[in-house]
Amino acid sequence: MQIVCLDLESVLVPEIWVEFAARTGIEALSDTTREVPNYDVLMRQRLKLLQQHGLGLAEIQAVIAQMEPLAGAVAFLDWLRPQYQIVIISDTFYEFSLPLMEKLGWPTLLAHHLVCDEKGTVVDYKLRQIDPKRQSVIALQQLDYSVIAVGDSHNDISMLEQADNGILFNSPDAVKATYPQFPTADSFAELKTKILAFS
Amino acid sequence: MQIVCLDLESVLVPEIWVEFAARTGIEALSDTTREVPNYDVLMRQRLKLLQQHGLGLAEIQAVIAQMEPLAGAVAFLDWLRPQYQIVIISDTFYEFSLPLMEKLGWPTLLAHHLVCDEKGTVVDYKLRQIDPKRQSVIALQQLDYSVIAVGDSHNDISMLEQADNGILFNSPDAVKATYPQFPTADSFAELKTKILAFS
Repeated sequence: MQIVCLDLESVLVPEIWVEFAARTGIEALSDTTREVPNYDVLMRQRLKLLQQHGLGLAEIQAVIAQMEPLAGAVAFLDWLRPQYQIVIISDTFYEFSLPLMEKLGWPTLLAHHLVCDEKGTVVDYKLRQIDPKRQSVIALQQLDYSVIAVGDSHNDISMLEQADNGILFNSPDAVKATYPQFPTADSFAELKTKILAFS
Repeated sequence: MQIVCLDLESVLVPEIWVEFAARTGIEALSDTTREVPNYDVLMRQRLKLLQQHGLGLAEIQAVIAQMEPLAGAVAFLDWLRPQYQIVIISDTFYEFSLPLMEKLGWPTLLAHHLVCDEKGTVVDYKLRQIDPKRQSVIALQQLDYSVIAVGDSHNDISMLEQADNGILFNSPDAVKATYPQFPTADSFAELKTKILAFS
């Protein structure tokens, strides 16, 4: 019995912070785990920038509501759903991803929460647990599922390692070179082929 | 962080075997865990009846494709999705439930598989694991989710017991009387109120 676990950003939707940086013009917000592999360092930097620019959750959500899934992502999910169960495993925040999840047809999302004060200022973030992507795969495997995991970047590697089969999708060459043990795909057509090969 | 775990049959869709029995006229196929609490005994009885009547997977699926979700179920899920993550935890079989899952908008389903021979005769069934409903809740709790579980019958009790909050929905009076520790709901409006109270 197989479940496909998909990372969200760069796999189904744009990198939310990168797109947010472009739309707001705050360049430093475009850093991702590709540039800053330590996630906590990255998040503290982001929260500080948001506060410096007076951007609360309402402003952030208004920007994100204008974003669209990656071209082909919705059709890919429509192809996947009758054949596999799907769980999205992401280091995004529920508060951010809501409008994009709706556009993806509400697949189940395992993610994190932001902490806001009464004015809507994002004052902190709450990671669900240590190494959440690996733990999510372990939990599904404990339910006797075989897991095919798909991700693009450093923070997906523990998920790909733990999964029965891992695929790097839309990964930069540096990530592919660092983790040559994983097959790669650079289009949804390729990804479908790789997933079918593991079935 | 909360996840709502929903049983499928009698909660979102009709009892598939009961409806199947009605449409095929094979009365003994209408037994459920309400009548035969031991699930393995129930399933062996069902498989024997299917074979006696020459009904393979194709015939079964053709009947199920004509069924509809319970009135209000789709609207209930539409209400739930922006506020909670949803996982359906069912003792149904993927092969059976596919057309109904599509009508529900493909929520993630943890279920079981049937084993068919090359002619499409259902020769066996494969439960995912022992006590799958409780195990599914435990797995989500290990991911630091608080679980609200909703079910109607005997086979849901371990899930409701394990969950942080359990609700009996659409349950017969005998089930309600046996498990008075769980709050009950008999309409989607009531169920929404109960879920919100646990949030």
